[in-house]
Amino acid sequence: MSAVITEKPALREGAFGHATGLVCRECGHTVELGPHYACSECFGPLEVAYDFPAVTREEIEAGPANIWRYKALLPVPSDIEQSPNTEPGFTRLLEARNLAAELGLTKLWVKDDSTNPTNSFKDRVVACALSAAIELKAKVFACPSTGNLANAVAAAGARAGIKTVVFIPSNLEKPKQVNSAVYTDSLVAVDGNYDDVNKLASEIAGEEEGWAFVNVNVRPFYAEGSKTLGYEIAEQLGWRLPDQVVIPVASGSQLTKVHKAFRELVRLGLVEDKPVRIFGAQATGCSPVSTAYKGGVDAIRPVKPDTIAKSLAIGNPADGIYVLDICRETGGAVEDIDDDAVREGILLLARTEGIFTETAGGTTVGVLKKLVETGQLDTSLETVVINTGMGLKTLDAVADSVGPAATIAPSYAAFAATGIA
Amino acid sequence: MSAVITEKPALREGAFGHATGLVCRECGHTVELGPHYACSECFGPLEVAYDFPAVTREEIEAGPANIWRYKALLPVPSDIEQSPNTEPGFTRLLEARNLAAELGLTKLWVKDDSTNPTNSFKDRVVACALSAAIELKAKVFACPSTGNLANAVAAAGARAGIKTVVFIPSNLEKPKQVNSAVYTDSLVAVDGNYDDVNKLASEIAGEEEGWAFVNVNVRPFYAEGSKTLGYEIAEQLGWRLPDQVVIPVASGSQLTKVHKAFRELVRLGLVEDKPVRIFGAQATGCSPVSTAYKGGVDAIRPVKPDTIAKSLAIGNPADGIYVLDICRETGGAVEDIDDDAVREGILLLARTEGIFTETAGGTTVGVLKKLVETGQLDTSLETVVINTGMGLKTLDAVADSVGPAATIAPSYAAFAATGIA
Repeated sequence: MSAVITEKPALREGAFGHATGLVCRECGHTVELGPHYACSECFGPLEVAYDFPAVTREEIEAGPANIWRYKALLPVPSDIEQSPNTEPGFTRLLEARNLAAELGLTKLWVKDDSTNPTNSFKDRVVACALSAAIELKAKVFACPSTGNLANAVAAAGARAGIKTVVFIPSNLEKPKQVNSAVYTDSLVAVDGNYDDVNKLASEIAGEEEGWAFVNVNVRPFYAEGSKTLGYEIAEQLGWRLPDQVVIPVASGSQLTKVHKAFRELVRLGLVEDKPVRIFGAQATGCSPVSTAYKGGVDAIRPVKPDTIAKSLAIGNPADGIYVLDICRETGGAVEDIDDDAVREGILLLARTEGIFTETAGGTTVGVLKKLVETGQLDTSLETVVINTGMGLKTLDAVADSVGPAATIAPSYAAFAATGIA
Repeated sequence: MSAVITEKPALREGAFGHATGLVCRECGHTVELGPHYACSECFGPLEVAYDFPAVTREEIEAGPANIWRYKALLPVPSDIEQSPNTEPGFTRLLEARNLAAELGLTKLWVKDDSTNPTNSFKDRVVACALSAAIELKAKVFACPSTGNLANAVAAAGARAGIKTVVFIPSNLEKPKQVNSAVYTDSLVAVDGNYDDVNKLASEIAGEEEGWAFVNVNVRPFYAEGSKTLGYEIAEQLGWRLPDQVVIPVASGSQLTKVHKAFRELVRLGLVEDKPVRIFGAQATGCSPVSTAYKGGVDAIRPVKPDTIAKSLAIGNPADGIYVLDICRETGGAVEDIDDDAVREGILLLARTEGIFTETAGGTTVGVLKKLVETGQLDTSLETVVINTGMGLKTLDAVADSVGPAATIAPSYAAFAATGIA
């Protein structure tokens, strides 16, 4: 399936870098590069295919401190740095000695995407979608979203000077509305739930000429942005793969792309091959992939989400079946925790490593803990956990759990009496 | 003046890198490296003095993508990367073409410190203070603060595994309390205003052994962290100095340190010398430095702050007189804008460049605009404006100014009727 952006986009040479086409993940049918998102033969999801050039570590290291250091491996033109974008990525990979000690792990790292331009990993995928939108001559850059994606799209569009239209459920919390509305005067509130907003977006993508919906008609390009998380982890480890990675699962796309990134690096000779166990993290209130994993089945049964981890609350995850495949094949697992454990995960990461994550990160850290406790994760192996967002966006999750240890009069005597010294 | 950390700290060799002592900015008196913050002769502020080694661009470029790439120029040991810290810095320098066009500038860059680990430039100074606290064998890492500094101290202390105690006014907004309390169980609310909290902190620093207050007894080390903003601007411009820089002024320390950084780079042969006009930005509701600048006087008359730009609300700025000197000597200026213009500055930066800044950044961007409009800034010269923080922390400043353009039923017909397409 496709959605019109322009009738006949006159693509310039190298508009999508070394990408050669879009290939169906299910049946292998190939279509040309363009605003297509589902296979015309079998309705399977389309992925970008490449003919990669030889790439060296030195060439990558000489690039900018953002995702464009990997531009040769992304569906973007070679002059991408000249096109105004938010320049996301190359975020911190922190060795988490305190959290490792707390959980009993030998070696643990946190890949911290909360320091991206709009404070979530979405800036990575949106930067790739923006490039596709521009190359396809889109006039409008749009998305349906409840939070992080809306922020990323509105910010990237503002910087690129392209009109953005962001659709949100009308009952969305005020802070999340403000965090998008500050960038765009075309925020549209829709009376309905997120599914209604999503459906409306697909309808508009089919009706309106020139609209690039990042997660609809340019989704194959958008999704490739998540590969950069995998590239960065490997490069920041000193061009090595870790033994185990724990990744949050919403649509499941991020997990599949990190896995794809590792395989590409091996194929390109940039890292040595080795087994990497991949683990998926969900909140129990929206755990269709974890449920399927535990049930030993291949099909994902959609659920109606009910969890505070709203950025993971996709009840019918498009890439869920691929997540199952990868976690099973690599010797990983998919696990879930309840909302109280999500809150505990937020505080655990903050107290041990000074990182204030949102509910999605609390889920991932909490699942890491559970994987250790249940013996599913090997504590002697080098592990990476991915934090995808930041805590100020989901402040309410912990607002009632923490506060001052004491309230005192402004005197030394009053302070001394607290016993804190 | 000094405050005890340990009676006789047994400093290891190279504990403060190439720093040689602390020198009084007023009378030149030198004291040894330690927890000293005011001259014992004249009460002037102490600054770190160095005997810099030869440093090459290549050595710096081979360093990590954080402030430690400049470790040879900071009062930190050569093995600083081994000591758990938040790894701040090397934030984006974005060419701001849309904002430049809007204001009529030829070439404009935004140095964006909102993507630091706790989303403000304070992570830079706190990382340097943390190193000093550890080398001085402090047991407690502390600060009085109303926001950004508290977040940075509590996060850095958690990651370093050192006890943190953060003092705040008890009437501080809940979100700001949460954003510190999430990291530490020793948040202390003080019934009083910020001045009362500050006074209490100085008292504790003098009474309690082993306490490092980042902005009191290790302030000389702390303040050096702001130099990295200057280093990064020059390196990211391709080892060149800009013609003009606009910097927010609270205590004034950041402006003086960016200036110092530029001069050091010239002296070390890392950039070519050239005139750099330095401009200071204040909010009218707390503009003692701007008032002195406009009045043509040398003394700063303290004020009682009344502005939404709370992170700039220091009524008696310690480095105010040095800001006056630098801005006058370099052909810059100090300017101020009212709170409505601060709000406009926030929206202007968001709409043109996709950066959501806090009130301090709104002040700096708004002052940039005023400097252009009043002819104080040369629009033909290359200019850098520094954004020091992020908008989610001061959401209320714009929460009533922006919102959805339309609220619609979930149907294409309803959307089409809005005229947004």
